[in-house]
Amino acid sequence: MKVSELGEFGLIDLLAKMVNGSPVSQASRQQLILGIGDDAAAWWGDTSIQLATVDTFIQDVDFSLAIASWEELGWKALAASLSDIAAMGGIPKYALVSVAFPDHTEVEHVIAVYKGMIQLAQQFGVVIAGGDTSSAPLVVITITVLGSAKNRDKHILTRSGAKPGDKVAVTGYLGAAAAGLEMLSEKLQLDSEAATQLRKAFLHPYPRIAEGQILVEQGVKTAIDISDGLISDLNQICKSSQVGALIEIDRLPIEPMVGANFGDKSIELALSGGEDYELLFTGSAQTMDKVKMAVSCSVTVIGEIVADEARKVLIVDSQGNPFHLQKLGWEHFTTK
Amino acid sequence: MKVSELGEFGLIDLLAKMVNGSPVSQASRQQLILGIGDDAAAWWGDTSIQLATVDTFIQDVDFSLAIASWEELGWKALAASLSDIAAMGGIPKYALVSVAFPDHTEVEHVIAVYKGMIQLAQQFGVVIAGGDTSSAPLVVITITVLGSAKNRDKHILTRSGAKPGDKVAVTGYLGAAAAGLEMLSEKLQLDSEAATQLRKAFLHPYPRIAEGQILVEQGVKTAIDISDGLISDLNQICKSSQVGALIEIDRLPIEPMVGANFGDKSIELALSGGEDYELLFTGSAQTMDKVKMAVSCSVTVIGEIVADEARKVLIVDSQGNPFHLQKLGWEHFTTK
Repeated sequence: MKVSELGEFGLIDLLAKMVNGSPVSQASRQQLILGIGDDAAAWWGDTSIQLATVDTFIQDVDFSLAIASWEELGWKALAASLSDIAAMGGIPKYALVSVAFPDHTEVEHVIAVYKGMIQLAQQFGVVIAGGDTSSAPLVVITITVLGSAKNRDKHILTRSGAKPGDKVAVTGYLGAAAAGLEMLSEKLQLDSEAATQLRKAFLHPYPRIAEGQILVEQGVKTAIDISDGLISDLNQICKSSQVGALIEIDRLPIEPMVGANFGDKSIELALSGGEDYELLFTGSAQTMDKVKMAVSCSVTVIGEIVADEARKVLIVDSQGNPFHLQKLGWEHFTTK
Repeated sequence: MKVSELGEFGLIDLLAKMVNGSPVSQASRQQLILGIGDDAAAWWGDTSIQLATVDTFIQDVDFSLAIASWEELGWKALAASLSDIAAMGGIPKYALVSVAFPDHTEVEHVIAVYKGMIQLAQQFGVVIAGGDTSSAPLVVITITVLGSAKNRDKHILTRSGAKPGDKVAVTGYLGAAAAGLEMLSEKLQLDSEAATQLRKAFLHPYPRIAEGQILVEQGVKTAIDISDGLISDLNQICKSSQVGALIEIDRLPIEPMVGANFGDKSIELALSGGEDYELLFTGSAQTMDKVKMAVSCSVTVIGEIVADEARKVLIVDSQGNPFHLQKLGWEHFTTK
């Protein structure tokens, strides 16, 4: 069988089983809290929970230099990894940056990539502590971010704590990153304000680091960041938590610029577009009220967790009728 | 200027300056012990020194599937990162594995890569704790290894502690990995014992984890692993320590199978071949004697550190005459 037939998530399941089934020293294994299958790996350090995550960006698969500037590429690659730490409610501390460039790459372009990364790293007090440099026929950027939970007595956010009756909520607004990609790749002519904002959403996302920590403080247990798409990422929560979810389309906080420029397509962009890097989380109605008071960004309840043996995400329109999506979200290896 | 004109080491210097010159939160920066420019990054954890290193392996740049089996590829990719932790005298604990494969890759080949990694991870009690999976036009494997120094009161091995008068020594034997590469890529017909051993040296290297920790215990301060080549890696020590070095060719512990099969070329394979993943370290004559008693593998003094403003490695033959190498070692971006 080829990996394209198995798909990214099938492959991850298979590899996770191999890795988790292998005997390793009890000392290391006992300290491990979360292995493959969450936003970041987590283990007990000497006095706090340690977090680590890695993301690889491959030219013409995960980004296109026809669309992104070199500086935006650096920013976004780091933002994706920082967002994984945000989804754990953690504090990012160190980044390791492994880059590969073709021999003919201009040095100034490499410098621009690092400028983008350094700008973002500075905003969150992250130190770029090391890395690796290679030549390759195409640009490959792999960023590892290491961090920790805020305090020993604080928990981390996982994908596996959702319970029937929990509300499902998101930070911020949805669909702008996917709308930005569509605008740039289809060369759509939007007014300059919309164009600027959508480009920024797609290429200059802000990871929800502060918000992730506030979720922990306010008692949220379950979260993921929206990288593959709202439905796809909610599917991950459902699978890990062994529950289903019901999402009401009318409640989706679609970014107004997206609604204004993309009409009916806005719903699909918000549900399956991905790369918004907002936090998707669950908790009781009271917890949601507390979170809304505590964070500075908007928080919108979009549905709830339900008991469902099939672990499905059901989307309903304003009449309560099921809504069918063409595409659930981004998955590597699958034919588009 | 193109990266091929600047070269890998020039590019690393430039990026290190950018990163280290950027203002970041004092809290993170103060805990950092070693940033870009050593085998691994190092910082103060709550009660011990934490280590992290990353290595990217790119198809047809760092490996060839015409030569390596998929399982050997997995083993070797992890071995390279573990070797960086060995060169710090550290204990490896967790690995994050980011892999990218073409869509048409057979799932059994991906499984074989993980088998190779898991086999090696088990031997050193390393837990594969997470990672990332992508599609790409070619195979890319990036492995991050996280570890720590043995105890709070133990130091780590850096590249910057070499002093004039120090002896320069290596663990094990040299040249076998490069000889294995030459044998496989040139399809040389060697006797089966030599063929097996040289293939193993190149594709199934053992990182010197235990030896690295013993070096720390015996008082060694300065080490690097031989990945780019003995001379190239010794150059890194000289640059970081602001010293020169004198290496005597007659003292090189050339792997006997290499000497027997490659004649005069053996010297070049040993000096600049790379990927032997032995430890290259410096220390006083007494320290070297203690190390020799304490480790189970062979340790050979091959020269000494000298005061040299030019930070050069000088190689001399049995008559004390300078010996000139065609190629100093492996460097990405440079024309071969």
